[in-house]
Amino acid sequence: LPPRANTGRPPGLTRARQLAKRSHRERTRLFLAEGPQAVREALAGRPAITELFVTATARARHAQLVDAAAASVAVHEISGELMAELAQTVTPQGLLAVCRFIDVPLADVVGTSPRLVVVLANVRDPGNAGTVLRTADAAGADGVIFADASVDPYNSKCVRSSAGSLFHLPIVTGAPLADAIATLRDAGLAVLAADGSASLSLDQLGDARLGLPTAWMFGNEAWGLPSDLLELADEPVAVPIYGRAESLNLAAAAAVCLYASARAHARGVPQRSSDTLGFGYVAS
Amino acid sequence: LPPRANTGRPPGLTRARQLAKRSHRERTRLFLAEGPQAVREALAGRPAITELFVTATARARHAQLVDAAAASVAVHEISGELMAELAQTVTPQGLLAVCRFIDVPLADVVGTSPRLVVVLANVRDPGNAGTVLRTADAAGADGVIFADASVDPYNSKCVRSSAGSLFHLPIVTGAPLADAIATLRDAGLAVLAADGSASLSLDQLGDARLGLPTAWMFGNEAWGLPSDLLELADEPVAVPIYGRAESLNLAAAAAVCLYASARAHARGVPQRSSDTLGFGYVAS
Repeated sequence: LPPRANTGRPPGLTRARQLAKRSHRERTRLFLAEGPQAVREALAGRPAITELFVTATARARHAQLVDAAAASVAVHEISGELMAELAQTVTPQGLLAVCRFIDVPLADVVGTSPRLVVVLANVRDPGNAGTVLRTADAAGADGVIFADASVDPYNSKCVRSSAGSLFHLPIVTGAPLADAIATLRDAGLAVLAADGSASLSLDQLGDARLGLPTAWMFGNEAWGLPSDLLELADEPVAVPIYGRAESLNLAAAAAVCLYASARAHARGVPQRSSDTLGFGYVAS
Repeated sequence: LPPRANTGRPPGLTRARQLAKRSHRERTRLFLAEGPQAVREALAGRPAITELFVTATARARHAQLVDAAAASVAVHEISGELMAELAQTVTPQGLLAVCRFIDVPLADVVGTSPRLVVVLANVRDPGNAGTVLRTADAAGADGVIFADASVDPYNSKCVRSSAGSLFHLPIVTGAPLADAIATLRDAGLAVLAADGSASLSLDQLGDARLGLPTAWMFGNEAWGLPSDLLELADEPVAVPIYGRAESLNLAAAAAVCLYASARAHARGVPQRSSDTLGFGYVAS
């Protein structure tokens, strides 16, 4: 059995609390991940956890998980009161990990011959960003780029709403949008921008277009990306509105777009011809 | 110009504040809708607004809208402080309408020969419910049923996240789930339940199935509807997970399902044969 930490105030607690602030996260390249799902995913991937804080109740409930963590990192048992201070949720789940930043250079994503990449341009709401990350993971995306002024993926709300997906697929932060798009295009990806005012509807894109390796760009509410950002894409594409809603929210629009691509990818792999605009299919 | 209300404490203010509570809403069959978008949509549909509270700033900014409202309802100008008390948002938009309940009996929805109906079963989070309502509107749904223990659609968070869609399509509240499903099936709708553990994938449903008039049932997180509810559906259907995410969130799963149906409906109207399992298509 791993040694049981005492239930006082462990030295790492103050440092961990500071990670609520982006400036502290960026200086230390550490962030907080809360709850059993996040801790499980953080342990399963490449080593991300440096310290684990746990309440006695959570330790009992998730004994296997805590033991697995204790094999490689320091585990500090703390009181429910201290956990409440540390966790940024109304109902803390009793498990909170300090994790190393896990973002990778864009070259790492491009190097995997990606078929589906998500680019977040100026997405400011951390809950939305985390939900899109989760949806990108579900749709089998090969990476998510948090470009320019987009929210910090290590923000606790983003980590939480990603439901573990933050640890599943490569993320890239801080890349200037224009550079990222140029790099993705050079790597052979089509670049589509979700924009509610576009004249081309998603439903008009057949499998031939959707089946290409694609980078999808999403703006703040998926609707009305500024024209300078739209110009970076090959084509702006609108999720059609069949009823009377003015627009979809970002999470819903991203889900419809990413699943349209994922479905086309699952049905067959189009091969882009290097010297013509034609392409053939290979069943996947 | 409409008469300018004084900026004191209008008599309706206390009554309006009480509408933050579900019990008061249900007793009075009134609810609050905040912001210019909601007020605009509430005015555009069948008469829903009974009173409008507005700050001087918002009155100046949305003069046309406020004048339009003043033609039919009492407009009370109140201070920013009183608005902050009344509105349930961090940054109130200065316009808040008291509206009559707008839900209709299920028979009204069924009577329109609906092609796409959404049934929320035990959806508890008002933000999720409002987002699904908005997505249902965008996908051209003919109605949304808030069945059984689902959240109150008149909850301020649900109203807000519906982004005006609450006023766009018929909603039904309080219908027992089994009764609602039976009624929809009797009206000729196929009943599909979104469930992450289903063996049938959404991608396996062709236009022939998706193009039928359909009621989609969604549970609390679209994943793992309890078996007694699943049994009410013709078939449980999973949004496929191509990556490593455990599940999609409700808003994303609903968007993918509803747009799959909407796209099939847009491509052609399948006619269900009354005496065989075959069907033919009529271009729409």
